[in-house]
Formats: sequence, C-alpha cells, structure tokens
Amino acid sequence: MPASAPAICLLTDFGQADPYAAQMKGAILARQPGAAIVDVSHEVPPFALSTAALFLDASRGHFAPGTVFVCVVDPGVGTARRIIALIKDGQTILAPDNGLAGLVLAAPGPARAHDLSAHAEAAGVSATFHGRDVFAPLAAALASGTSPAELGPEVDAQSLKRLPWAAPQWERAARRVRAAVLHVDRFGNAITNLPVDALDTLAAWGDLTLTSSPEADAPATLLAVVRSYAALPPRAAGLLAGSQGRLEIAMNQAHAARALGLEPGRALTLSAGTSGIAEA
Amino acid sequence: MPASAPAICLLTDFGQADPYAAQMKGAILARQPGAAIVDVSHEVPPFALSTAALFLDASRGHFAPGTVFVCVVDPGVGTARRIIALIKDGQTILAPDNGLAGLVLAAPGPARAHDLSAHAEAAGVSATFHGRDVFAPLAAALASGTSPAELGPEVDAQSLKRLPWAAPQWERAARRVRAAVLHVDRFGNAITNLPVDALDTLAAWGDLTLTSSPEADAPATLLAVVRSYAALPPRAAGLLAGSQGRLEIAMNQAHAARALGLEPGRALTLSAGTSGIAEA
Amino acid sequence: MPASAPAICLLTDFGQADPYAAQMKGAILARQPGAAIVDVSHEVPPFALSTAALFLDASRGHFAPGTVFVCVVDPGVGTARRIIALIKDGQTILAPDNGLAGLVLAAPGPARAHDLSAHAEAAGVSATFHGRDVFAPLAAALASGTSPAELGPEVDAQSLKRLPWAAPQWERAARRVRAAVLHVDRFGNAITNLPVDALDTLAAWGDLTLTSSPEADAPATLLAVVRSYAALPPRAAGLLAGSQGRLEIAMNQAHAARALGLEPGRALTLSAGTSGIAEA
Repeated sequence: MPASAPAICLLTDFGQADPYAAQMKGAILARQPGAAIVDVSHEVPPFALSTAALFLDASRGHFAPGTVFVCVVDPGVGTARRIIALIKDGQTILAPDNGLAGLVLAAPGPARAHDLSAHAEAAGVSATFHGRDVFAPLAAALASGTSPAELGPEVDAQSLKRLPWAAPQWERAARRVRAAVLHVDRFGNAITNLPVDALDTLAAWGDLTLTSSPEADAPATLLAVVRSYAALPPRAAGLLAGSQGRLEIAMNQAHAARALGLEPGRALTLSAGTSGIAEA
Repeated sequence: MPASAPAICLLTDFGQADPYAAQMKGAILARQPGAAIVDVSHEVPPFALSTAALFLDASRGHFAPGTVFVCVVDPGVGTARRIIALIKDGQTILAPDNGLAGLVLAAPGPARAHDLSAHAEAAGVSATFHGRDVFAPLAAALASGTSPAELGPEVDAQSLKRLPWAAPQWERAARRVRAAVLHVDRFGNAITNLPVDALDTLAAWGDLTLTSSPEADAPATLLAVVRSYAALPPRAAGLLAGSQGRLEIAMNQAHAARALGLEPGRALTLSAGTSGIAEA
Repeated sequence: MPASAPAICLLTDFGQADPYAAQMKGAILARQPGAAIVDVSHEVPPFALSTAALFLDASRGHFAPGTVFVCVVDPGVGTARRIIALIKDGQTILAPDNGLAGLVLAAPGPARAHDLSAHAEAAGVSATFHGRDVFAPLAAALASGTSPAELGPEVDAQSLKRLPWAAPQWERAARRVRAAVLHVDRFGNAITNLPVDALDTLAAWGDLTLTSSPEADAPATLLAVVRSYAALPPRAAGLLAGSQGRLEIAMNQAHAARALGLEPGRALTLSAGTSGIAEA
C-alpha cells in the first residue's frame, strides 16, 4: 500500500471499553495492512443520529480527498434499512441509510450513492456484528481502490433518508427560521443545524426570540447574535459561529443547554424581535 | 519496515486518562518506527482477568496472522508470576501467566509457549512500569521478526495458569453444564464462557433453568434458548449466540445482568427443565 | 514519507467524545499522509496545566528523537499568549506559552525556542479552533522536516512562562524542600514535582514531616521514604520513586490524595524530622 492510501475514519456509538471498534480495525487491517485508521468518535450517545450526523459533517472537510468514513450508529440493525456508500466532495461515506448522512446530503454540491445492502444479506444475521462483519470489509475495499459501482448498484442520492433536523426551514418573509439542536458539547453549547453562513442573515434581523418545542419546557428567550463569547453579558444567551461549521447557542460562563432546556433533536424557532418574551 | 508488518494490539486496564498506554506506544515506536498499533481496550476493569481474557479471545480471530497481542492486566506485578509468549493460530500473545490467556488455551488447536520472565528480572523492580519497560520492547522485537525462542526458553503450554472460568464443565448425562459469566457489556448482556457452538446442544435440552452461585443472590430463572433478541417476550431472559463467539444471557428491552444478579466471574449452572423455578 | 518519519504526539484536554482530536488528525494527515499519530492523552482535566506538564515530561523520554509533541491545554486561547516551539533533547514541543512546558524547561540540558504566534494571527480568531487550524498544520510541517526557524523567530528559552510548580525549592541547610502536587492518578497516588533522583537526599534526612498549603486543610503527616509500596505499613503514607520519573506520595492499600487532602497544584513542604506532627 502506498503511504498515500486514504485514511479510514470510524464513527460509532460503541464506546471505548468494549473491543468492538478494535475488531473493526482488525477486520480492516487484515484486508489492508498498514491502513491509516482514525477514530472520529466512538462516544456518540447510543443511537443519537443527530450527533453522529454533526460529527461526520463537521469533520469531513478536515480530511483529505479519498478518505473513507465508516459510520455505524444503527438503531435499525436487523431491519431492512439499506447500507449505502455516499460519494461527496471526493470522499466516501459508508453508513446505514437512516439519516446519519443527512447533513452531508443537505450540503451544496453533487452527491452519488450506491446501495451495498446485498453484502449484509450475504453475511447473514445470526451472531453477526455489522460494523465488523459488513462495514469494515467494505471500507477496506473502498479505501484500497475498489469502486462503489463494483460493490452495489447506483441509487438516487435523493432517495436517501433525511430526518427533520437535516436542514433548517427558512420563512424569510416572516423573518423566522425553524431549526434544531444537533448536539450539546461538554461546555453546554447547543450546536444547531444552522450553518455558519446564516449568521449574517440572522444578525440583520437584530435580537432574536428563541422558542423550543415542546414549548412548555422552555419559555421564549432573548438571543443576541454575537461574534464571540466575550461579547455576551454574563448569563446572557447568544448565537455565534462555532468551530464545527454551525451556529451555536451559548451562554457566557454558563451551561446554555441546561439553562435553556435544550437537548439533541429539540426543535427550535428563531424569530426577529423580542415581542414574545415575558418580563424577567 | 514493510507495510505488511504485523499489527501490535494493546489490551490493558490502564484507562485512557493517564499516559501509560502512550508510553508503551512510544517504547514500541522507538524500536519499530511505523508499527501499526491498535488499542483493543484500555478500559478492562482493574485486574478483571475474565474480561481481559474474553476481549483477547473474541478479538484475535479478526486480526491477521502474525499479529502480536500485548496484554497487561497484572494483579501479580512485583510477584514471581511468569511472563509468557503464547503462539497460537499464527499469532503471538504476550501476557503475564495469570490466566489471562485461559480462553485462548482452551480453544482447539496446538499452542506453544515461551517463558520470557528473565527480561523482567533484567529490568529491575524499582520505579519500573512493566507494560512500558518490559512488555513493549518484547512486543516490538516479536513484531519485527525476532522468534520467541530467541527471547526465552520453551515451556509446556499446559503449564500455563488456567482459572475456573476458562472452560465450561459439561455433565451431559444429567443435561447440566457449569459455566461462568466473563463480562457484562454496556447493554447488560452477560457474556458467558460457553462457546457459540454449544447452542445446538442446549437448544435440544429445551427450556433451561439458570442458577448462579452464591445462590442466595439470585433465584432460579427460566432461560429460553433463542436465535435473536426479537424472539424473546419483553423482560424474558434468554440465551443466544452473540457476536463475541460466546453465548450471552440477555433480556429483551432490559438489563439482564442487573435483573438476574449476574457479574463477571459469577458461576452459573444451566440445567434442562424448569422444575426448580418458583412460581412467579 | 519514509517509515521512519517522526511520530506526532497529541496531548489535550478535549476529551474523547467530541471529534476535536480527530479533526486535528485529519488536518495533520491531509498535509502528511501516513503520519504516525499517538494520543498521549485527551483526558487532561480542563485547563489543568500541571497535569499536562507532567504527562508531557514523563512521556517524552519514551519516544524517539525527532518526535513532535503537540500540546493544547490552553486557558488563554483568544488572548495574547504566544505559541512556541521548544526544541529539547532532539524533539520538538509545540504548545501555548502558558507553563505547560515548564517541567521540560526545568530539566537539565540546553533548549531552544521559536515564537510561532504569527501563524495564529494569520488564522484569525472567529470560529477557529486553534488545535486544528493552527497547531496541527504547524505540527505536520515540523514532522515533515520544516525547521522551526522557517516558521518563526528564535526567542530566549528562558523567556518562556514557568509556573510555581515547575521546580521544587530546596532549603538544604534547613533540611526542607518546598514542592507541589502535579497530578493525582487513578490509584490516589499524588505525583509531585520532585524528580526521582531526589530520593537519596530525602532518604538521608530520615522520616519527613509533610505539610500542605493552605495548611488548615491537612494536618502535618509523617512521611516515610521507602523503596516500594510493600515497605509501607497499611494506611501509612510514604514517598517513593514512581514510574513517571517523579516522587509519589502513596499509601499502602489506600487513596493517599484523599486521605491527605492533596490535589493538583497543591503546595507541599517536606521537612526532616517529625516534631510538628500531633499525636494521632
């Protein structure tokens, strides 16, 4: 294998205590000795597709063309969900067709997809571990130059499953956007599905009112659009561009998600103006 | 080093916060630049030999021939326990002679062993860290092609320490087997020392009665032999073949180990019939 | 890249759940395919400079010459702290100038330093992640042979920031030394900033009295200087040489740090004699 063989990136919810990720690596290395394998994360909360989708989409641009991402967060293992290879921006994403690639699909630019499900059927279902027995061999093949077309038929990338949080819904006339929380990081910042290039639009609306659904859990909150944490008064909530390519709801010196009742998957509405906010 | 040099797999109870595993990697890479090092797990519970033994035996078949496994779960460090290199199925396992390799030894096929303890004596005992100062250099030597015979004398593989959970004890006439829990995974499945190929025998016995020792902790339980989780009624306990090469005691939508009072090292008896089970 | 290209070691407080360390690896691999990247630790407690300093200094000697250490524990990100490359013992340490390299600077032998801060200014401050966007590209350049002088001007290594725990203060005439706790490991051992070669001096003083500041938290304690854990009576506190190159305060079969009220950064005084110790 040339030193420039593409990296293989693993993204799972297996945790790091059990040897499951290691067994995937063994299955890859047995087929492609010397493969460069990178752990994106194995600590996605179990079955948390929005977190996995964010980690994938936020990380892929930092890896070289040719990189193969193997994503196994798979609440539907054992059901009829497809296994797909998605080719986007010169990289290949191998994942269950369950919405995990939803943010990648929502990004601009062309995408192609192949259906590799037949390999799972060939592996059987009894006592198998799809990550190790199906995904890892496919990843090794893709990273060593096998084309996706050799592994399964092309399918319409538009047919891939998308979940409600894959893209914000803009209502520009009403100066309102419906968004979602994808992930809460260790500092309590709630990372939304709003791309960083939405910041200028929202900043032009002035202060925002944030509501989340179900609304009973969290009252409307004033949200300032800012350029840095330091621009926020203590304990004020703000919206700013984060390093993961998304707008984040943060508080200066406080855990924003806890203070505002936000959690992954939560629907958000951001509206221009502050008329819906009760007196403090 | 050719790209096809064997992988070196690390299995320890050092955790991932401290730099101990990294120092082992440094010691390996300083001797063999470019070595492919894979973490099997560093989160074996401290001194949990049955968990380490399971992780090793369940993982080794997924790695290529030639792979070197370096296992440092070592309650006896500082005592006179031997350090052994066990050659099995074309791979080499470097471990303290404390039972950690017990499941590998119980597997079919020939095994050879060498006693490398002299290298530990040469390293001294004061302020040394055997994983880094003794095991890592030996692993680098083995992975770069040094034969075990150059590192220490051959010893009878039958002389290696085996712990009670290394193999189940069958009483076929009485349709009973004495087994053990090796590990409880993050989903609450209790992974036993029964190999998956025991499933057919047990299925032929019909429903089973499970008791565990000490018995006061857990009453006799009905255990259905099933082919998949989905075949279990909610909260019923079953025995099924898992992806780790062992039979697992699981419950549908519940944490089996907690519900049944099972933990690593716990002795189990599985008996044909349900006569010992109290009315619910 | 030749197989003997130097390893790149990562040391951060980013944790392992989020994809931050992975994004650093992507940024390195995109510039230097096939780089050997080793995680020293990503579980340094947030902003714990003394822990990071210990992990770095205790680990570097186990890696080959040429290794590049990339250290990102950075309470001052966004402020005017410098980014420096420190060349010591044939290796390069890339870190914020915040004291993290303090133990390396305190070690004997020559050191050179270069100021690479201009690269951070070039990257801007909005929505950037210095570990990924500044440190990782610099590390890739250094590991691929770019000299530090090409990346920034040389500065006096003596100008680098040193924190109070960087070196113990000896008062030999009074047979007293002022030291500090750098880290508490998972077993409760308190690793101090005293190098192991101080053991003979302290052993010659006989039994020691340990006090820590603020003193109200912990009474004076008798501390025996010993060569191994086994030399300590149960629950007695002792000082011994540990595997991390430092003297450690330990108790036989007990969590020394908890029993003695020690935590990272805590100042210690060790004095010859036992006159200050109250009756038990």
